[in-house]
Amino acid sequence: MGGVSHIVVDWGTSSFRLWALDAGGAVLAERRSAQGLAASGAEGFETVLESHLAALDIPDGVPVMMCGMVGSRAGWVEAAYVATPAGLDGLTEQAAHVPSARRLIRILPGIAQRGAAGADVMRGEETQLLPLLRDGFAGTACLPGTHSKWVRVEEGAVAGFATFLTGELFHLLRSASVVAPAVEGAAPVDPASADFATGVDDGLAAPELLGRDLFRLRAGWLLDGASPEATLARLSGLLIGAELAGAARIAGTGPVALIASGAAAALYGTALKRAGFAAVTLHDAEACVRAGLHAAALRAFRLERISA
Amino acid sequence: MGGVSHIVVDWGTSSFRLWALDAGGAVLAERRSAQGLAASGAEGFETVLESHLAALDIPDGVPVMMCGMVGSRAGWVEAAYVATPAGLDGLTEQAAHVPSARRLIRILPGIAQRGAAGADVMRGEETQLLPLLRDGFAGTACLPGTHSKWVRVEEGAVAGFATFLTGELFHLLRSASVVAPAVEGAAPVDPASADFATGVDDGLAAPELLGRDLFRLRAGWLLDGASPEATLARLSGLLIGAELAGAARIAGTGPVALIASGAAAALYGTALKRAGFAAVTLHDAEACVRAGLHAAALRAFRLERISA
Repeated sequence: MGGVSHIVVDWGTSSFRLWALDAGGAVLAERRSAQGLAASGAEGFETVLESHLAALDIPDGVPVMMCGMVGSRAGWVEAAYVATPAGLDGLTEQAAHVPSARRLIRILPGIAQRGAAGADVMRGEETQLLPLLRDGFAGTACLPGTHSKWVRVEEGAVAGFATFLTGELFHLLRSASVVAPAVEGAAPVDPASADFATGVDDGLAAPELLGRDLFRLRAGWLLDGASPEATLARLSGLLIGAELAGAARIAGTGPVALIASGAAAALYGTALKRAGFAAVTLHDAEACVRAGLHAAALRAFRLERISA
Repeated sequence: MGGVSHIVVDWGTSSFRLWALDAGGAVLAERRSAQGLAASGAEGFETVLESHLAALDIPDGVPVMMCGMVGSRAGWVEAAYVATPAGLDGLTEQAAHVPSARRLIRILPGIAQRGAAGADVMRGEETQLLPLLRDGFAGTACLPGTHSKWVRVEEGAVAGFATFLTGELFHLLRSASVVAPAVEGAAPVDPASADFATGVDDGLAAPELLGRDLFRLRAGWLLDGASPEATLARLSGLLIGAELAGAARIAGTGPVALIASGAAAALYGTALKRAGFAAVTLHDAEACVRAGLHAAALRAFRLERISA
């Protein structure tokens, strides 16, 4: 394949996404697979990466910039956390060097927060934030997910952040708790449903009653025959509502950059409005991580000068 | 065995406890096993019960009063929920009759709350409350557990209640979440530890930040090497603190009858004090369930008249 300047890879716990970019960041080709950390560790990280590059006819010498759990202790090469405040320069300088005879390979580090602000870590989300940092954004960013991140961006850097266990609680409760039989077989949550809205409102209004409201999901199914769809929508709404109550306490309800895709974008978009957050700007999470990796690749591999 | 008036059994999801009582309620013998619902369902409920009675030489004709999940849909015979307000008379009258050629066997029903107060159910806890109802208690009772119950008792009846998923969340988080590696191998939580106290205070002060504080348990382990004991104590404290914030909103912080045993009694006793609840009176949960079953047996089997 011709015209490829560099390769960027978002390599997480359960997914692998690779893009071949030109010097301007345009996508020339992509590869996606479920070869996350567990699968790749067994097969060999280099084998997995090079097989995708071979499939695209990428020659030796084309450099690769990666982010995500591939840089964790359980990954390929550990990229130690950079401390807050952290921006593009610090992240790129601290990228881990992966030994390879065929090409330059770097993994961007995550960010750690220590001290009075409270211990917290991110890995992968920092890369999604890079385009906002580059473009001079200042304010609050929300990155929903298994571990939702609320990030304070100041002066082109991640100044501080807080992680909420929302998505993981949702998964545990729907699959392994007494609520599980009440949501079995439910279709995905409809962000426009009244049940989701009621859940968000209840979670916002009384987050201290979350433990009670969660049990009520089971009781409502037992006593009133509540449908799996309605119960799952309420579960999702309650957890997101409680998160937004906490986020509002930390960050206020000013303008928010929502970095998300698909279902999460719709659910959080709806919930943020109900919670009274001012102007919410949606940024596609996948476009952000690709643009962030591109920016880091230009910096790390000095591609601007090479391609100039 | 002589002098046995009746048998009482607390038969739950994971445990079986049986006492042989005289007409005054004194314990003449007891049996305990791990033959909860799952184990007993396969072996046969009658086989399990009669094997314990045979081991104590209990003759045919001695009646048995039971409570707990043995009366659920997955149990021996379903004892349908009684509606709030529910007291000793209603529960006893609605006890399920278990067919047996050898003796009278009854299972006490649970209690269901419907309507504006919110759907909720209890099964087993209603029996622990019976001694309080009999003794004219009025006020708030707290029964901590996998599903903690907060009960409003009025005029000798359970007027309303709220269930919090606290214990189940604790179990899920410590065993199946990203917090699990941070608490692996931890000794049981010390109710007198500073970490438990800090967790309770944080959960009380900011229950809307529970999702964030849960993730911080992992981050504190990753970044600061927090010990499994400290992390587990904080986890327990956070969840109980958040529950008490919710309970205080529902019931206020007036006098509370705490019906609990062992570790739960100590943890909730400490937490209730930190949360500013007024006079907390501790009632041993096992003594309560036995006394409750005894009171129901006297009523159901008209034993007062027989023994008079």
